[in-house]
Amino acid sequence: MSPSDHTATTPDELGLELIDRWWRAANYLSVGQIYLLDNPLLREPLRPEHIKPRLLGHWGTTPGLNFIYAHVNRAIVQRDLDMMYVMGPGHGGPGPLAASWLEGSYTETYPNVTRDAEGMRRLFRQFSFPGGVPSHVAPETPGSIHEGGELGYALSHAYGAAFDNPDLIVAAVVGDGEAETGPLAASWHSNKFVDPRRDGTVLPILHLNGYKIASPTVLARITPEELDHLLRGYGHNPRYVEGSDPAQMHQDFARALDECLDEIEEIKRRAGEEDHSDRPRWPMIVLRSPKGWTGPAEVDGKPVEGTWRSHQVPFAEARENDAHREILERWLRSYRPDELFDESGAPAAEIADLHPAGIRRMSSSPHSNGGQVLRELRMPDFRQYAIPVSAPGGSDAESTRALGGFLRDVLSDNADNFRVFAPDENNSNRLNAVLDVTERTWNAEIIAGDDHLAPDGRVMEILSEHTCQGWLEGYLLTGRHGFFSCYEAFIHIVDSMFNQHAKWLTTTNDIPWRRPIASLNYLLTSHVWRQDHNGFSHQDPGFIDHVVNKKSDVIRVYLPPDANTLLSVADHCLRSRQYVNVIVAGKQPQPQFLSMDAAIEHCTKGIGIWDWASNDEGEKPDVVMACAGDVPTLETLAAVSILRDAFPNLRIRVVNVVDLLRLQDRQAHPHGLADQDFDALFTTDVPVVFAYHGYPSLIHRLTYRRANHANFHVHGYREEGTTTTPFDMCVLNEIDRFHLALDVIDRVPSLRDVSSHVREELRDRLIRHTVYIREHGDDLPEIRDWVWRDAASTEPAEPRG
Amino acid sequence: MSPSDHTATTPDELGLELIDRWWRAANYLSVGQIYLLDNPLLREPLRPEHIKPRLLGHWGTTPGLNFIYAHVNRAIVQRDLDMMYVMGPGHGGPGPLAASWLEGSYTETYPNVTRDAEGMRRLFRQFSFPGGVPSHVAPETPGSIHEGGELGYALSHAYGAAFDNPDLIVAAVVGDGEAETGPLAASWHSNKFVDPRRDGTVLPILHLNGYKIASPTVLARITPEELDHLLRGYGHNPRYVEGSDPAQMHQDFARALDECLDEIEEIKRRAGEEDHSDRPRWPMIVLRSPKGWTGPAEVDGKPVEGTWRSHQVPFAEARENDAHREILERWLRSYRPDELFDESGAPAAEIADLHPAGIRRMSSSPHSNGGQVLRELRMPDFRQYAIPVSAPGGSDAESTRALGGFLRDVLSDNADNFRVFAPDENNSNRLNAVLDVTERTWNAEIIAGDDHLAPDGRVMEILSEHTCQGWLEGYLLTGRHGFFSCYEAFIHIVDSMFNQHAKWLTTTNDIPWRRPIASLNYLLTSHVWRQDHNGFSHQDPGFIDHVVNKKSDVIRVYLPPDANTLLSVADHCLRSRQYVNVIVAGKQPQPQFLSMDAAIEHCTKGIGIWDWASNDEGEKPDVVMACAGDVPTLETLAAVSILRDAFPNLRIRVVNVVDLLRLQDRQAHPHGLADQDFDALFTTDVPVVFAYHGYPSLIHRLTYRRANHANFHVHGYREEGTTTTPFDMCVLNEIDRFHLALDVIDRVPSLRDVSSHVREELRDRLIRHTVYIREHGDDLPEIRDWVWRDAASTEPAEPRG
Repeated sequence: MSPSDHTATTPDELGLELIDRWWRAANYLSVGQIYLLDNPLLREPLRPEHIKPRLLGHWGTTPGLNFIYAHVNRAIVQRDLDMMYVMGPGHGGPGPLAASWLEGSYTETYPNVTRDAEGMRRLFRQFSFPGGVPSHVAPETPGSIHEGGELGYALSHAYGAAFDNPDLIVAAVVGDGEAETGPLAASWHSNKFVDPRRDGTVLPILHLNGYKIASPTVLARITPEELDHLLRGYGHNPRYVEGSDPAQMHQDFARALDECLDEIEEIKRRAGEEDHSDRPRWPMIVLRSPKGWTGPAEVDGKPVEGTWRSHQVPFAEARENDAHREILERWLRSYRPDELFDESGAPAAEIADLHPAGIRRMSSSPHSNGGQVLRELRMPDFRQYAIPVSAPGGSDAESTRALGGFLRDVLSDNADNFRVFAPDENNSNRLNAVLDVTERTWNAEIIAGDDHLAPDGRVMEILSEHTCQGWLEGYLLTGRHGFFSCYEAFIHIVDSMFNQHAKWLTTTNDIPWRRPIASLNYLLTSHVWRQDHNGFSHQDPGFIDHVVNKKSDVIRVYLPPDANTLLSVADHCLRSRQYVNVIVAGKQPQPQFLSMDAAIEHCTKGIGIWDWASNDEGEKPDVVMACAGDVPTLETLAAVSILRDAFPNLRIRVVNVVDLLRLQDRQAHPHGLADQDFDALFTTDVPVVFAYHGYPSLIHRLTYRRANHANFHVHGYREEGTTTTPFDMCVLNEIDRFHLALDVIDRVPSLRDVSSHVREELRDRLIRHTVYIREHGDDLPEIRDWVWRDAASTEPAEPRG
Repeated sequence: MSPSDHTATTPDELGLELIDRWWRAANYLSVGQIYLLDNPLLREPLRPEHIKPRLLGHWGTTPGLNFIYAHVNRAIVQRDLDMMYVMGPGHGGPGPLAASWLEGSYTETYPNVTRDAEGMRRLFRQFSFPGGVPSHVAPETPGSIHEGGELGYALSHAYGAAFDNPDLIVAAVVGDGEAETGPLAASWHSNKFVDPRRDGTVLPILHLNGYKIASPTVLARITPEELDHLLRGYGHNPRYVEGSDPAQMHQDFARALDECLDEIEEIKRRAGEEDHSDRPRWPMIVLRSPKGWTGPAEVDGKPVEGTWRSHQVPFAEARENDAHREILERWLRSYRPDELFDESGAPAAEIADLHPAGIRRMSSSPHSNGGQVLRELRMPDFRQYAIPVSAPGGSDAESTRALGGFLRDVLSDNADNFRVFAPDENNSNRLNAVLDVTERTWNAEIIAGDDHLAPDGRVMEILSEHTCQGWLEGYLLTGRHGFFSCYEAFIHIVDSMFNQHAKWLTTTNDIPWRRPIASLNYLLTSHVWRQDHNGFSHQDPGFIDHVVNKKSDVIRVYLPPDANTLLSVADHCLRSRQYVNVIVAGKQPQPQFLSMDAAIEHCTKGIGIWDWASNDEGEKPDVVMACAGDVPTLETLAAVSILRDAFPNLRIRVVNVVDLLRLQDRQAHPHGLADQDFDALFTTDVPVVFAYHGYPSLIHRLTYRRANHANFHVHGYREEGTTTTPFDMCVLNEIDRFHLALDVIDRVPSLRDVSSHVREELRDRLIRHTVYIREHGDDLPEIRDWVWRDAASTEPAEPRG
């Protein structure tokens, strides 16, 4: 079955016999985890009750993962390397658990899983078992930053880990199934974003395991020439290790790995010596080995080793079927457990010699528990970037441009542990200022006319949201900080990546040894209300809806209405830990409402009455006009102006929401307002006309348990849009000032009989707007240049700058 | 400025002078669309009022798109080809609009945009203008199946169009920005899924335009050798056309295109002659040309042509700034409009000679208006696949396996216009039966032991949800039918692709000349309640939430509770048009409830009372127990059993929901129940305990306007999960029978005082469950093997098969 029997006789300059023994031990422990409840060392014959009733796990990829792990361990010891292991085929969860147990880190982390027969029994039993550990690589797995769920992110995570870690080498196994995914295919080009002086190294190991769940893999079935072309086209210098005979494979892999590590050393040496070097062609390894290697060759007359039948559990009836159980026992014994474990069940002494010690163990790498190595950001005082606002609406600014100044200085002050990421949108999103102190990361060709490119730049731009997100996740998970700006509509591209990261955070909140990491900060801009010129396909504010489906303890959503609130929110987010923070803010020039002091106060509360825009004077209002988001705030204030002009006695209360989850009740979200505080803002019976940035249903969803919910009338994006003017976008979705004012008139009983002329006038203004834009192609000047005036005075606000 | 002045003197075997003239005309019309409100033929000097007030569009990629279009047109005419044009850089919207106008198809489609000076004025004015047309390629654009929104899908759409269209050649332009995205990077390998006999051809044209919005592109800045390696690694035989001198470029491109078309002809000829041929290395072209080619070289002292500054509008102040306006006028005149358009403003007669006639015009291709060529599916009678159900719960079946038989025969009966798609999950999703009549599509190497692979298979599996979705979209948009099965959690990978397709459908509903196409059908299986063994990262039922954010007229969501309802729903979906249908159904063995006749009746209503499970006898019940989804239905029925045993006098009504959007009110969704019908089911004041497949908030969102909403208590997925047993997943999320029964006891006033012992017993059973699974690793037999019994009788139902 396992041809490992030959290895004892091979020449062994590199300690290959020991490596083989370590590999056999890891394989034994992997099979044991998948199958065994008890009798871990096979010290008695295998009986049905020793087998798990539900067999859940993936064998196929595991022996390959173990093989690589063993060899990398040898190299770490021989060369004293700082290495991490990223397992793309993370469904091979038994592998890293076996390695960690062999290395002792598992027992250090989970003391009840001792390094003896009883601990081995627990290791086996807990795997994929209720109350135990997941079948995939997971946050619970020591040494991991990469969940074995959805595939596609092994390389981008690995590169994220390597950035700004010059001495780190990340061994990144890419499964040939994963290699078919889009995100993985794109991420090969990450090597154009590595600076050999400042960054660490990613050593990709493409594992041609041959099959996915059922089909062969594309990369295993193109010609060797095509594969070599492809990998060289990605910018790598590949080495190939192919076969199934362990003795030969050990020799070949050890040699290939040594050559790669020599080459990496040479690249780093040259880069350190020369002023400017060409982009290196980084080494990589292609390992072509049988799926389910060393597993049973055949079961029930059907080939298993080397086929897709090895993908999960190679045979399922080991409990009920005696013949299957015999196959299992023979399989386990083929690893010769007596040579691998001592009398007590602990790994034999020689095996312990193979692996490195302490934090050199990949299962104990401090990088893989990023919170351990996290350093606080040095934060400039965000107040110094304030936009002067002498009176609400008294000046215009591009909010994200103000944020750019702040981020610039965060970059300056944290030159080795903070980066910003964008899918080629940094300047489009008006964060240009960051390029005053650093460049766009770029290690491909640079020619005259290029704008701000350098190998050691820290503005990471590639036209792949997946790659940006993967880099950032890897960077955060290894204990650094970052900021991702993106067009709002296209952040849906990473919906499933966000899911996995949020779930990772949720899980780590319950794992005491996992230290808190920096939050993942999104700025969503070029948002739905200002995508008029890119049209309908660029309009989608639904990422927030997606985000709030995840556990409330890891997600935060902010809608700062202007520049100073944006600055305050961004400062808060950059200091936070273990969250995904979603900030939505526009980049176009817009009226500014709050001075920095007012902004801080408002953001601290997260939600509040804007007294300067309200005239309820602390009394019960006739209507609450609520708003969340910059454009909805602007339109709400314009509607308030209209209403106060038309109905001076109407008592209007304006409530602005920055921290969206303040709306939810306290049981549902830690930021949720207590009911009495919510009712104090929104009353229990007065109509609330709410202008919200996104899909209106979310506001209902967040507030449906509140006393006054039946009186909430929410305006938001209704999937109406095309190429038109900014204000027309609002009109199409009925979130504009006129529709808001009309809605108030409809909702406030006292206005119903006195307002027909106002209603008519508002409808007339809507028609005039439509006629005007179709004639002129732009919004009416009175709308474009609208200025908030304090309705209590007749004076206009300060002239706008 | 434009070096086109030279072209008149070049040798012209291929009619290159004419091609150049056509190109200049298309470029002139493109610039005109971006800038001009009036004075389209420059018959008077350009004045400020001739310029649009808001300049919105993308020039950079457009001259390249026009260049390719002109050359492809020449080839179509010379060779009488059936070709389509897929523009990856679809933001270059002015290009295809110009081409369509030149070819006459625009005027045929939109008669008010005549082919004369007035029509040209309208063509210009409407572009990116309120009430006009989008700035990107869009459904409104004749000849397009590919929205110019988010990037990444040009090749997968092109391949989708080519499948089963053996005589079609799809010219697919891939922008070098787009080429950085994951989905595009993965889709190059689509050529391993093409059968040269049965399928058409995709001719990729990689356009190295050099820059994105701000940064250079990766593929333009790797070495020529690396690029060549990469493209050969993708399985192509590339030809290179590089430069900026139009005369030379015309010659080079024409030659390269002819060589490619010769090669395609030869591949098709050989494939037709030989029994089996090796996978061809399909030709492709790399066009390296300056971004904003023929545009102004410099503006305000800064280089523009050939730089990222050409990306959108190369200079923005043409209205206000005289110097800019002069540059614009010189630029436009450099195309020599007098040679291009006649006195009336129509294209000069020679230009009309270049393009093909009728449906050979790419802007008029019937494939691009798929509904025009759509043939009805030949549908077997789905009732013949019924699972026999003699009594509710009387038998077990895997619902998706039953569906597999139906799909098998749909494949049999529609051998050239129906395919099924899955990310290597067809058999995992238990649709195995389809492989009885066709194979998995595969034109890479096949070796012994492979399972059901063939070049002409019609089960399309690649481990890329993006590629599956892109292929399917292309296939549907060109008038065919398809079915996509996917693990529920991972369908979020294509959230943003779904968005664009749904928006395309919404828009085409308002475009009379766009004929309805077949719906996009998703089967989401391996769903959240049966991902226990894959763990937390595989658990996410939120795709439904994402879907219902889109316009209600294009989306449908079905949750069939068993096999016969699944068959009925699938039949309905396959016959439908212009929808995205989301079907969620499990693959694991589960009790079957409805006979086929009952299933059809239930699915026709979409929602209804299950009398056989209810005992309210048409009276007002004490509680409504509602359920949507297979596992929630099972748990609800088990809870009903418990409650009826414990409280024989309790009147329970069971409502099952198949068509989820029946819950919404009628204004919000066309399937919405009228209020009186909703109230007849759910009452206006009785507690409703609702077990729902996904996130509970969605049920509140759909029902918040209903009279009885305050009494809805929804159980669903609460982001609790790990590797555990199926029933424990329900317990963790409190959607299990015990929690449901406890909730009923809490909600029904008459039970409050009489039920303490029942409450205690239920809590005790929950504890017993937890103890048992931690001991045995599997659910209690009484839970695993639970059988619905008619509580009115003491007889068990029919024995289970």
